[in-house]
Amino acid sequence: MKAAGLVVEYNPFHNGHQYHLDQSLAYTKADLAVGVMSGNFLQRGEPAIVNKWARTRMALEAGVDLIVELPFVHAVQKAEYFAEAAVLLLEELQCDWVCFGSEQGNIQPFMDTYDLLDEHADFINNHAKHFMDEGHSYPKAMALAYGELKHTHPHMLTLDQPNNILGFHYVSAILKNKLSIQPVTIQRTGSGYHDADLPKNSIASATAIRKELTSEGRLEDVARFLPRTSYEILSDYHEEMNTWHTWEMYWPYVKLKLLTTSPDRLKDIYEMKEGLENRLISAAQTSATFLDFMNKVKTKRYTWTRLQRLLTYLLVNITNDCIPQDLKPTYIRVLGFSQKGREYIQSLKKEKGHLLLTRPAASNDPILAIEQRSANVHASVLPPELWQHVQKREYQPPVILP
Amino acid sequence: MKAAGLVVEYNPFHNGHQYHLDQSLAYTKADLAVGVMSGNFLQRGEPAIVNKWARTRMALEAGVDLIVELPFVHAVQKAEYFAEAAVLLLEELQCDWVCFGSEQGNIQPFMDTYDLLDEHADFINNHAKHFMDEGHSYPKAMALAYGELKHTHPHMLTLDQPNNILGFHYVSAILKNKLSIQPVTIQRTGSGYHDADLPKNSIASATAIRKELTSEGRLEDVARFLPRTSYEILSDYHEEMNTWHTWEMYWPYVKLKLLTTSPDRLKDIYEMKEGLENRLISAAQTSATFLDFMNKVKTKRYTWTRLQRLLTYLLVNITNDCIPQDLKPTYIRVLGFSQKGREYIQSLKKEKGHLLLTRPAASNDPILAIEQRSANVHASVLPPELWQHVQKREYQPPVILP
Repeated sequence: MKAAGLVVEYNPFHNGHQYHLDQSLAYTKADLAVGVMSGNFLQRGEPAIVNKWARTRMALEAGVDLIVELPFVHAVQKAEYFAEAAVLLLEELQCDWVCFGSEQGNIQPFMDTYDLLDEHADFINNHAKHFMDEGHSYPKAMALAYGELKHTHPHMLTLDQPNNILGFHYVSAILKNKLSIQPVTIQRTGSGYHDADLPKNSIASATAIRKELTSEGRLEDVARFLPRTSYEILSDYHEEMNTWHTWEMYWPYVKLKLLTTSPDRLKDIYEMKEGLENRLISAAQTSATFLDFMNKVKTKRYTWTRLQRLLTYLLVNITNDCIPQDLKPTYIRVLGFSQKGREYIQSLKKEKGHLLLTRPAASNDPILAIEQRSANVHASVLPPELWQHVQKREYQPPVILP
Repeated sequence: MKAAGLVVEYNPFHNGHQYHLDQSLAYTKADLAVGVMSGNFLQRGEPAIVNKWARTRMALEAGVDLIVELPFVHAVQKAEYFAEAAVLLLEELQCDWVCFGSEQGNIQPFMDTYDLLDEHADFINNHAKHFMDEGHSYPKAMALAYGELKHTHPHMLTLDQPNNILGFHYVSAILKNKLSIQPVTIQRTGSGYHDADLPKNSIASATAIRKELTSEGRLEDVARFLPRTSYEILSDYHEEMNTWHTWEMYWPYVKLKLLTTSPDRLKDIYEMKEGLENRLISAAQTSATFLDFMNKVKTKRYTWTRLQRLLTYLLVNITNDCIPQDLKPTYIRVLGFSQKGREYIQSLKKEKGHLLLTRPAASNDPILAIEQRSANVHASVLPPELWQHVQKREYQPPVILP
């Protein structure tokens, strides 16, 4: 069986994701699609609007055959780290392709750009350092340094669009680690990644859909951007849990932790550096809401996304020793599968059986222990009985599409 | 001016407290009453049903002239420690008497019992050790050892009633520290300290009043046990905050902290010993509610009260180094006063001016910093804007009765 691998967050699964899935299968002629998905917290340091079980069901209903969890320690990371860990996981899953959407739509510039950057690494580093010294954030400084190089090499990739950047990191991870998985890119259509407003056609960004849902919007208002099955799963989730998960709901936990923990202890948190702990404590003292707080602490250097990731580490209590140096997966955790997905897992067993996690409750892998913690944090905004219910769910079997 | 000192929690201020106040003033013929009051968390490790500012107002309206805060580190403690710190604070406040309610009603047995226990200390310690080895909690073992001594000295105090115990600790603290304050006891009337049901007359225990309010009860149902002013202050509080503070509301914070902190870190918490951290984590994993949790962790040795105090330390992040060895107050913090109370403060200034805390925001006393943390914990169950409002209140002037 030939497998097309996708790196996904599905927050929530919408028509744009459906398009990407269908195009990936059509282009590669793969027998099935395998998704590596972030769990309850996402790459940009946000709680998923609905938990990973609901998002797994949306993916399966839409035609993804197998969903495997990208562990928290790999998922809630800057793009480069996230992309490399995801591709390494798809490689262990013996996928033939990784298919990613991009603004570019053609794979060759990704390959060429990797080679050119490799060749001009010193040029990039020196320029990036220069731009950081001027006060730019790391991603911004890298982008500016890149622009300098592209000036003399115009056929290089346009890297100011988020999906081109992610795609470039997938390709880099493959070339750097000499993986056998092949990169494929699908031209994106419809809305941009960050577009916050709802468009007229049937493809809206997940950002715009979430924004609508979590402000005064109703699910019906975004129905036309969602497959029917996503709509129903979201509807059931909201009926059961009576909420969408947003940062604002977790704010009391963040605030109380900042106001009851010593700066020295806060410094143990991963990525808490350069005196950020004092900055956060001081802002927490004067902020009523998460929005107030973020507006007080964000700067060019401490971007919104970087701060969100930091606050996620704070809540899940991620210290430096939680983060593995080696990005290779230590286990494969299946969140859900279709019948075809089940056959594929069977076919993996011969070579990858030792990695397949069958009884999470019996494992003592420290990376999996963090999954349990993050599930608890994600569920902590639910009423007590539902929280307990979700907590137990963590040890139960994958979602199975009949 | 002659001052009668009272050690109080007023959770909430009810007719029994009014009786005690009136009798104390009548008996001593004092010019005013000075209350040393626990702040937002109480001796038995409970969040106060309404915060210390509302409780201060109730006390002033009822006729207490001056309310001074018993710091968290002294208040949330076993009876012996609590009582000694409170009496030391009343001594610094130059009170002439400490007036406590007791089942006994006569001061002489308290004095005699102190002398007898001093004389027979070895007897008590050996017997208490024996009873603890049999699996009894420390207070229970002390009570049994005491019973053995009383067997041969029948005129000793009956120490199986909570107010006799507290009173005994006040008297002990005075005699041990050779204080000039005089102990006075007022015979209690009406309900027992722990009586959980509402009686027919107008005096109910604070426990019964809280139980009624925090179950399905309405404030009107307990109105007959409260002075009119207490009723109004409670009513205003509930209207503004839309809640009474109960442990069940703080449960999400307790649960999340237990499930995201390593056992090694939990061991840093004051009074977390003998492997309790693992017992708490394990119970938190399987408990939906605070009640479930407490029923799972309590034993004869780890009594409900001891566990509540421990969970309070957990939330306020009280480590061993937070607890001063010396029980003498490092400052006097006035929470509220009447006009007579103001005159009394003026009269204190000559000798005790250095202890009077006038600008809490400018102080860096570590004991006061804990007061701020505990105020944040207490307010953390309120909606974000109200929490912020209460947090600011901590740095504002005392309550003044016009």
